[in-house]
Amino acid sequence: MKITISTSRKQELIDITDKVNELVKKSKVKEGICNVFVKHATAAIIINENYDPNVCIDFLNALNKAFPDHAGYLHDKVDNNAGAHIKAAVLGPSETIPIENGKLKLGRWQSIMVVELDGPRSNREVEVRILT
Amino acid sequence: MKITISTSRKQELIDITDKVNELVKKSKVKEGICNVFVKHATAAIIINENYDPNVCIDFLNALNKAFPDHAGYLHDKVDNNAGAHIKAAVLGPSETIPIENGKLKLGRWQSIMVVELDGPRSNREVEVRILT
Amino acid sequence: MKITISTSRKQELIDITDKVNELVKKSKVKEGICNVFVKHATAAIIINENYDPNVCIDFLNALNKAFPDHAGYLHDKVDNNAGAHIKAAVLGPSETIPIENGKLKLGRWQSIMVVELDGPRSNREVEVRILT
Repeated sequence: MKITISTSRKQELIDITDKVNELVKKSKVKEGICNVFVKHATAAIIINENYDPNVCIDFLNALNKAFPDHAGYLHDKVDNNAGAHIKAAVLGPSETIPIENGKLKLGRWQSIMVVELDGPRSNREVEVRILT
Repeated sequence: MKITISTSRKQELIDITDKVNELVKKSKVKEGICNVFVKHATAAIIINENYDPNVCIDFLNALNKAFPDHAGYLHDKVDNNAGAHIKAAVLGPSETIPIENGKLKLGRWQSIMVVELDGPRSNREVEVRILT
Repeated sequence: MKITISTSRKQELIDITDKVNELVKKSKVKEGICNVFVKHATAAIIINENYDPNVCIDFLNALNKAFPDHAGYLHDKVDNNAGAHIKAAVLGPSETIPIENGKLKLGRWQSIMVVELDGPRSNREVEVRILT
């Protein structure tokens, strides 16, 4: 199963929790795990709060301070996106979430988000696997 | 299956390896994987050395240097815990570990630890799923 | 199933994508997930670009700037490798990847890499579990 999303900015967090939960529902799996995997080397999956959208802004700012773009990277001469690769590798392309009673067993403040690090892009693909 | 823990400090690492291994034993699964998922947006799961407990202190210090608290975050005006959210999102809420002969197949120096980033809290819930 | 690798430098990225895909093929599993787990507290698994090998150099440089070695760590008095433990804990020991049509469903620019952080070592063990 797959989710395809478009992004509209250079860096952005896209909440896909509802879309993943729809796929869990569709699978009819009641108990198990759900693996969410973004198929790109300049994007990542994180789980965090999205109720206050400022958390997303703070997250990207802090990430850029810890791993700044254009800090003399060799790959910038090729694609000019080394910073996006570095941040994607640190965050990782996937998360695995428990399923209970046919739904993702997330905490009250946990949302699944695609981290766009080299946008905008029109076809960011997220693979979803559900296992019992 | 679930593990509930209490934390006693603002930031802390709690070793849950033995508790997870008890659940693996209880499941009677001999070969498979174990997904450990903390249900909070200001906590995380890591795997690392806990034989020398100084590794845990060094880890939290280094994490706070790379992602400092109260660095002008917008969410601090709401909950004053943006730094905890940021660190939790970077580390991630889960790890998936192989099972062999009815036990977690961890390395000699690997322990599973809950990272408390906004404690103390009395009810930190960790979901454990075992699949074959 | 297991992959054993040797490393030749203090820090290094070793691409194991082909070896993992061989194990997937050998398993005859067509649809499912593959968990790749390195059994060491001073190594990690990441997924990123390896077509331009400079991405690997940039990644290690950026990681060392965000989490510098020998920054007054307590564990350095014991093993002198606290920085390796810290980086390993942040990156994490495992990744879980979807399988489709008997192959890892990776993106065009995604490779699975072992991150050596305290080498050289002759026996770095990577556990591979394939589930349907």
